[in-house]
Amino acid sequence: MSSSIGNLFKLTTFGESHGISMGGVIDGCPSGLVLDFHHIQECLNKRRPGFNILHSERKEPDEVEFLSGLLDGVTLGSPIGFLVKNKNAQSKDYDQLKDLFRPSHADFTYDKKYGIRDYRGGGRASARETVNWIVGGAIASQILKTKKISISSYVSAIGDISIDLEMNNFNLDDIYKNNIRCPIDSVAKKMEQLILKCKADGDTIGGKVSTVIKGLPIGFGEPIFNKLQASIARSIMSINACKGIEFGLGFKSSEKRGSEANDIFTLNEKDEICTKTNYSGGILGGISNGNDVYFRSAFKPVSTIFKSQETINKSLEKVDYTPSGRHDPCVVPRVVPIVDSLTAMLILDFYLLHKNTKLSDL
Amino acid sequence: MSSSIGNLFKLTTFGESHGISMGGVIDGCPSGLVLDFHHIQECLNKRRPGFNILHSERKEPDEVEFLSGLLDGVTLGSPIGFLVKNKNAQSKDYDQLKDLFRPSHADFTYDKKYGIRDYRGGGRASARETVNWIVGGAIASQILKTKKISISSYVSAIGDISIDLEMNNFNLDDIYKNNIRCPIDSVAKKMEQLILKCKADGDTIGGKVSTVIKGLPIGFGEPIFNKLQASIARSIMSINACKGIEFGLGFKSSEKRGSEANDIFTLNEKDEICTKTNYSGGILGGISNGNDVYFRSAFKPVSTIFKSQETINKSLEKVDYTPSGRHDPCVVPRVVPIVDSLTAMLILDFYLLHKNTKLSDL
Amino acid sequence: MSSSIGNLFKLTTFGESHGISMGGVIDGCPSGLVLDFHHIQECLNKRRPGFNILHSERKEPDEVEFLSGLLDGVTLGSPIGFLVKNKNAQSKDYDQLKDLFRPSHADFTYDKKYGIRDYRGGGRASARETVNWIVGGAIASQILKTKKISISSYVSAIGDISIDLEMNNFNLDDIYKNNIRCPIDSVAKKMEQLILKCKADGDTIGGKVSTVIKGLPIGFGEPIFNKLQASIARSIMSINACKGIEFGLGFKSSEKRGSEANDIFTLNEKDEICTKTNYSGGILGGISNGNDVYFRSAFKPVSTIFKSQETINKSLEKVDYTPSGRHDPCVVPRVVPIVDSLTAMLILDFYLLHKNTKLSDL
Amino acid sequence: MSSSIGNLFKLTTFGESHGISMGGVIDGCPSGLVLDFHHIQECLNKRRPGFNILHSERKEPDEVEFLSGLLDGVTLGSPIGFLVKNKNAQSKDYDQLKDLFRPSHADFTYDKKYGIRDYRGGGRASARETVNWIVGGAIASQILKTKKISISSYVSAIGDISIDLEMNNFNLDDIYKNNIRCPIDSVAKKMEQLILKCKADGDTIGGKVSTVIKGLPIGFGEPIFNKLQASIARSIMSINACKGIEFGLGFKSSEKRGSEANDIFTLNEKDEICTKTNYSGGILGGISNGNDVYFRSAFKPVSTIFKSQETINKSLEKVDYTPSGRHDPCVVPRVVPIVDSLTAMLILDFYLLHKNTKLSDL
Repeated sequence: MSSSIGNLFKLTTFGESHGISMGGVIDGCPSGLVLDFHHIQECLNKRRPGFNILHSERKEPDEVEFLSGLLDGVTLGSPIGFLVKNKNAQSKDYDQLKDLFRPSHADFTYDKKYGIRDYRGGGRASARETVNWIVGGAIASQILKTKKISISSYVSAIGDISIDLEMNNFNLDDIYKNNIRCPIDSVAKKMEQLILKCKADGDTIGGKVSTVIKGLPIGFGEPIFNKLQASIARSIMSINACKGIEFGLGFKSSEKRGSEANDIFTLNEKDEICTKTNYSGGILGGISNGNDVYFRSAFKPVSTIFKSQETINKSLEKVDYTPSGRHDPCVVPRVVPIVDSLTAMLILDFYLLHKNTKLSDL
Repeated sequence: MSSSIGNLFKLTTFGESHGISMGGVIDGCPSGLVLDFHHIQECLNKRRPGFNILHSERKEPDEVEFLSGLLDGVTLGSPIGFLVKNKNAQSKDYDQLKDLFRPSHADFTYDKKYGIRDYRGGGRASARETVNWIVGGAIASQILKTKKISISSYVSAIGDISIDLEMNNFNLDDIYKNNIRCPIDSVAKKMEQLILKCKADGDTIGGKVSTVIKGLPIGFGEPIFNKLQASIARSIMSINACKGIEFGLGFKSSEKRGSEANDIFTLNEKDEICTKTNYSGGILGGISNGNDVYFRSAFKPVSTIFKSQETINKSLEKVDYTPSGRHDPCVVPRVVPIVDSLTAMLILDFYLLHKNTKLSDL
Repeated sequence: MSSSIGNLFKLTTFGESHGISMGGVIDGCPSGLVLDFHHIQECLNKRRPGFNILHSERKEPDEVEFLSGLLDGVTLGSPIGFLVKNKNAQSKDYDQLKDLFRPSHADFTYDKKYGIRDYRGGGRASARETVNWIVGGAIASQILKTKKISISSYVSAIGDISIDLEMNNFNLDDIYKNNIRCPIDSVAKKMEQLILKCKADGDTIGGKVSTVIKGLPIGFGEPIFNKLQASIARSIMSINACKGIEFGLGFKSSEKRGSEANDIFTLNEKDEICTKTNYSGGILGGISNGNDVYFRSAFKPVSTIFKSQETINKSLEKVDYTPSGRHDPCVVPRVVPIVDSLTAMLILDFYLLHKNTKLSDL
Repeated sequence: MSSSIGNLFKLTTFGESHGISMGGVIDGCPSGLVLDFHHIQECLNKRRPGFNILHSERKEPDEVEFLSGLLDGVTLGSPIGFLVKNKNAQSKDYDQLKDLFRPSHADFTYDKKYGIRDYRGGGRASARETVNWIVGGAIASQILKTKKISISSYVSAIGDISIDLEMNNFNLDDIYKNNIRCPIDSVAKKMEQLILKCKADGDTIGGKVSTVIKGLPIGFGEPIFNKLQASIARSIMSINACKGIEFGLGFKSSEKRGSEANDIFTLNEKDEICTKTNYSGGILGGISNGNDVYFRSAFKPVSTIFKSQETINKSLEKVDYTPSGRHDPCVVPRVVPIVDSLTAMLILDFYLLHKNTKLSDL
């Protein structure tokens, strides 16, 4: 139950951080898609650690091997099995962790839940799992592209440095022009400085990711328990360090009056119904209303810091813990393609679900 | 797909606001439970509109009729069918809505998605649906009580009046001592004044609900796509006006450094592992760590305000809309038992899922 | 998990035989369908007990009340809640059953599984549940009709009296022309005599139901674990007395050689690919091949006979049991519309699933 | 939806017959199981082609590689990813099949459903998929063994040579003592002769497999749509050539009277309730009653025969087809471990589902 996501476009994953391989099965991918392997590898590269000085030096090539579901590069409609092997895992780095519970890591809860855990690099709890999601998301986004639906996430805050909500005059095409994945270069520079300072201090820092979905037709999302925002929230809150999510005005809307927060309907130049504002974030009653869908998610700082921290081991002794492996001072830039991937899979799933809504469409 | 929630304890619902009846089916309720009907009615009363001057005057008795799954008041293990009839629906109030899209309501998106909609009181999109959730939640919470697990939600903000995070010395037993469901009476009074002012202005106001789960054993929640926080987020974001959710330090954690946000493991007086702080909100790696689980959700103001608003009708004409029905100036106090109910169903579901985790427990 | 069937067109049911009401929720019915209430009632009437001398005298009106999902008789796309009340239940007939396990009934297994059971008329284990399936099937078959897909079940055997496989020259329109639902009147008469003889003996008799699906397009059914035949088998084997099912040549095919059992492809008069024979029953690799789909299911005799039988009670004493309620000597004619209903829901579900198969269809 | 089976113990598979690899993900396997790799390989060997003269000469080593979910051979509770590589695939054998629809194969329906197909050896429709099921079944049966639950399938018929139902005095331990997997050696010899004769004729032959589940506690199976027999039927009917299934007396029960088919309750020597006969096959109301569960499934002959057959190609031309690859004259002996595997996964799933039934068990 735990390792699958999606209803009609469904990803099932496996893999521990320092095991033999990550991988998964994509079931429900429509047949006849000429897979764009270059696009998939680009997506994987965006998530890959070690892409610049800000990130951990573990250098995984992160190449995906497709094992099924394709004939001459075209999808067959059968399940797409794939692997992303763990090539550069230095398990010996993790020997000291065997009997120790790292602060704010899942070591403790996995140990208690299962009575056993893969202590090497967090095992199944590691964010290495997200490499599987990139594969699914890359395929989904290729299909969405043919429908003119695009998903653009970017770093909107690192620590207390953020893009003001008013700063709307930036270009989503600029997101990947810097290492921070923040489309305003001047802000990105300040963020980079903050991250480097945290690194120098042996510390880490959190941040926020904002997402815009453009081109989403009216009508996606299912009422009641499969609302568009509820499903997105479930997906994004599955990302390891995610501690919150908000849509449209989000938490700020709780301070508003109705007369301030309502989006008034009007007509656009083509005489189609639209709204004057988009405080709701493009969703009404759980269903897309034709506006951009936008949401923002918050990520706590990486738990592994390069300072000695007190903790407890399995023998219930107090011990000091200083990590020796490779870790990021800030993962938020690497979260950006992960949010994109989860969102793409979900939107494609809603696309497929939506096709059977009206009798007149059957 | 849209109308069911839960894996092993599963609620499926139906009903439009002004149709004949709301209702649902609870499948997977363990057998042998002596249903506490008084408790169920109390839960329903807490959600009921019209319980005080702050709320809409629609007076529904909101009595549940159980149709199956019980023998002499004891659960049989078979599905529990139930109804909550719509007795006080004044559909004629809604005639003017037939061809009009109310601002920030789901009229427009339902109409476009389905090609038809029940315009009376929002139909399926109405928060009247939540009465079904209360029934499921009341049964779930009765079972959780036998396991010493309790869920307490309360209003932590109305507009800009809020309980400071530092105000921790209040008593969860005081939540229902005032109409606001805010456990600090002095804050509640200010909130009430703000709501009354909004009402006098023909306006509405948003707010926040905070939730604490106590007594949750270590180990609840499933890794990867069924993490405790992801599942809670999906549930709570299903509530009509919910625009955001955060766990533990939440959005604030995105501004923290690792050295500030980590929860250090130590030993309690019984020599059990615990943490010195609870910034994570009681969840590590998607799994409960034995601490209180806490989260906060944000609700936008009610869209129906008693001022004239411009909008568009189905003939694509600009029209003015002033509502004539009964509506709340602030629904946040009524959201409190709804958050409790969704959370209770979810926690029971995780309880049942967890029992099969270890071979040694089979 | 137990009370729902279907993926996109999904029925969830509830109700005990002598409880207040049967009922269910249909989720995923496309919007815009003008429900044919007359058709639904006709389907219910076909299943109803007491429709002639061969059947038990319990006279239930079996009228369905729709509670949601409709506006002026048109489906909204929201879940359709419905009830079929238990009006004529004479629970006192069942007092003697409280502590006794009837031979070959589910009293014993329910009691052991749940520790409690509704002893009145079999409770949840009663075939009264099938009234819910008729409602779902009637709606599904109305949609299928618009797609020129028809499902026709009929009684092909009662005891040892059967329609020979060679007797292919009958008319499916004649099925309901007699009480037996056997389209060959001369065979039906012999079957009726056998049933009456069993009734006179205080005994019961089993039989077989054959089903033909006409008009099914090529391509329905999903490979591997959702094959057309596997899904049909699961549905039909859910009927209370069903003990076996076979497709096409069925069990006989196990005695054949490949050269005898293969269906050779050829071209029809429109130069479309077809097969010279239809031994497979219209399914290849789990997917419909454009031929008629046909299958046959076997039903054991009703367990309640009007002879004294030895059994055991809850105090582990040997007791004699002679029933006093109303029971059918043969339920096979009443099974016919039940098979039709389950099949219709399933085929509609596959219809909806199939629409998203090819990229070129999106 | 198509590639997964199970609720709590869940297998998701992938792979085409002549692609790079078969494989799958097992989600929900309890933690702490010391995997018996020798047992798994033995199970794989039982299914492997080429184990004797009766079978196709394709020699696959069929070794499973586990990629995740294990630490030092012990299950972690995380998903178990695995591969079984396709090493001996001679794709060139299949070049002639590219544009041709083999009689009674799934070439035609896959082509029409997906608009593309992997023509090499049947692709996804090949029974090579069942190698994945063996892996899941081997793990499930290891767990069931610790609960004293055993599943024994055997060949009960090849063509018209069968074990009489009356022949009950054979030993289930003898099943694998001959190549036919028929526990009565004298019957096995006749079956072998028949298979060799069919082979000599360039023809193939069908057969039947019987299954007995011993040690199943009372109470497994869920009422209504997840009945034990319905779920088994769905699983077994997923096997490629399966054309029918029956439980207990099966089709014969349709010819019986109630007085002949009822199983009378009595007390055993330990004063526990049992039945005098087991006509029902160990299931009442969809729930195991403590008796042996038994069922029988029918398999059509292999469609690939070594005689020229007429067929149609994609250009709608009539062509003659004579296969050149390696194929079995009879696959029924190889079906035996496949039935065992599917049944083992299902029974384990019901075991896990059953644990949450009663409040007193929580």
